[in-house]
Amino acid sequence: RCFHFCKLPGRVMGIRLLRFTSVVIIVLLLVAGALTALLPTIKDDKLPNSRREPKTQTQSALDSFTLIMQTYNRTDLLLKLLNHYQAIPHLHKVIVVWNNIGEKTPEEMWNSLGPHPVPVVFKVQTVNRMRNRLQNFPDLETKAILMMDDDTLVSAHDLAFAFSVWQQFPEHIVGFVPRKHISTPSGVYSYGSFELQNPGFGNGDQYSMVLIGAAFFHSGYLEDFQQQPEAVYALIDETQNCDDIAMNFLVAKHTGKPSGVFVKPVDIRNLEKDTNSGYSGMWHRAEHLLQRSYCVNKLVNIYDGMPLKYSNIMISQFGFPNYANHKNKM
Amino acid sequence: RCFHFCKLPGRVMGIRLLRFTSVVIIVLLLVAGALTALLPTIKDDKLPNSRREPKTQTQSALDSFTLIMQTYNRTDLLLKLLNHYQAIPHLHKVIVVWNNIGEKTPEEMWNSLGPHPVPVVFKVQTVNRMRNRLQNFPDLETKAILMMDDDTLVSAHDLAFAFSVWQQFPEHIVGFVPRKHISTPSGVYSYGSFELQNPGFGNGDQYSMVLIGAAFFHSGYLEDFQQQPEAVYALIDETQNCDDIAMNFLVAKHTGKPSGVFVKPVDIRNLEKDTNSGYSGMWHRAEHLLQRSYCVNKLVNIYDGMPLKYSNIMISQFGFPNYANHKNKM
Repeated sequence: RCFHFCKLPGRVMGIRLLRFTSVVIIVLLLVAGALTALLPTIKDDKLPNSRREPKTQTQSALDSFTLIMQTYNRTDLLLKLLNHYQAIPHLHKVIVVWNNIGEKTPEEMWNSLGPHPVPVVFKVQTVNRMRNRLQNFPDLETKAILMMDDDTLVSAHDLAFAFSVWQQFPEHIVGFVPRKHISTPSGVYSYGSFELQNPGFGNGDQYSMVLIGAAFFHSGYLEDFQQQPEAVYALIDETQNCDDIAMNFLVAKHTGKPSGVFVKPVDIRNLEKDTNSGYSGMWHRAEHLLQRSYCVNKLVNIYDGMPLKYSNIMISQFGFPNYANHKNKM
Repeated sequence: RCFHFCKLPGRVMGIRLLRFTSVVIIVLLLVAGALTALLPTIKDDKLPNSRREPKTQTQSALDSFTLIMQTYNRTDLLLKLLNHYQAIPHLHKVIVVWNNIGEKTPEEMWNSLGPHPVPVVFKVQTVNRMRNRLQNFPDLETKAILMMDDDTLVSAHDLAFAFSVWQQFPEHIVGFVPRKHISTPSGVYSYGSFELQNPGFGNGDQYSMVLIGAAFFHSGYLEDFQQQPEAVYALIDETQNCDDIAMNFLVAKHTGKPSGVFVKPVDIRNLEKDTNSGYSGMWHRAEHLLQRSYCVNKLVNIYDGMPLKYSNIMISQFGFPNYANHKNKM
């Protein structure tokens, strides 16, 4: 019954050593316990799953973007575009805003055709509203959003470049479709295309908005959009239009600078004509442009001023697609 | 002898009134004097002439630029270019750095052909050094500098636009001539032109320098240049080259970002061939490009690291010269 301690001189010494060793062990355990109590506690203010892969989460949040695509009555185009956009570099996730009220989403079919490069979430809406795409979706994990109309195809090259530009201008709407407003002597504003009047700033032309239907912008602006006056939502709902003009007002007001940065796309296509649905998009309505002028003036009332600012900066990619596109005859 | 006061009842009262009025006047004067003493004193930390027109001075400092043009052995080109540049919008003053040692400047002729839109100052140099143009000239009153080689013509449209771009990127060298460096597996750098190797960042090409011979930059960088290690001056003097590479190192180190922003010029011309002097510029020397690679590596030693960063941002002017240069077939 006595272990090797009994080999030591004297059984009494053996027992003393045993007690001593036990005490030492217990003391060590207590000290260890005390030390762990001194370790910094893990803060509990992130999502639970971020504890498992904190570094990847943070990296993804800054180095990737979420595509938000709202769709109505053009599911064939949507699916074609999803096959394209799902493979864009730096894409983190796709959020499809499903405005086909009462209709099943293609989620089943989507899953049956997996695996897919990134997760795609179908957000079923209860009312067919233009501003549904401007909700602050809890699925959003990235700082950057790429918002695309469901009939617009932009090449991966253009998107990769524009995303890198957005990273250098994160407080701006960085996108492919510039527009402008005009002030007139009467004080009434007009929403202009570029065949119309020059704002009068010298050479060339200016733009004061970048449309969000083909653009990158910061997810924080979706949060900000939830704080807009009711009149803004009423305006967008009344016209089923102008959510993009409202976003430009919001961003311009926030930054005090031109809301957008225009990146000239190399390959952008409108696939409207390719749809089988027969549905051809809101911008074909007769009143579309007049509505947008109307919206500009209403927003100036709501904002108590005109926050939009002009810019004439046009950004292209150095050496692409034409390797010598920066050359000059000197 | 007695004025209308005598009409008042009693000569005695008239005298009292006179005294009273005098006392009141004197008291008022004293009060006025005391009030002026309470006025805020004009601070004496600006040039004397700024007291006369303080607002214009500050406005000019931010809204205009100083052209610095160094010249050697091409006075015919210099004068041709001065006639062009003297009328550029937002130009405040011209500083001609006269590297023709021992030769009279054309100042007399210049004055005899006045008046001129802006002041032109001829800074006579004692030694023909490439880095003479990088002195911190006391004549500088603006935040922005436009530095031009004495054989380069850039259109007023390009300059007006590039100046507006500089105002949005004041810590960068905003100019018309991009260049790049290449890292090689051996760790030795090379100064590249764009027909050479792609730095390997995906699509297209990159630049890591914007040459100062046709660029806007902040006058503060001339101050900073005076604080460079002696080895930098020795390198520039040894090669009579690379002052522009050194400036790009300085700016990149200072900002931690790409040193330059490239604005694609519409109309830039080299007038070298037009000179009667027969002098054709340093860059025709056989060793010119090899020297620049040498400079890159020396500067990396001096700076103990490579601060240059790549960019692929190319900026053009929206709607100019082609009114529809931003259009896309959608």
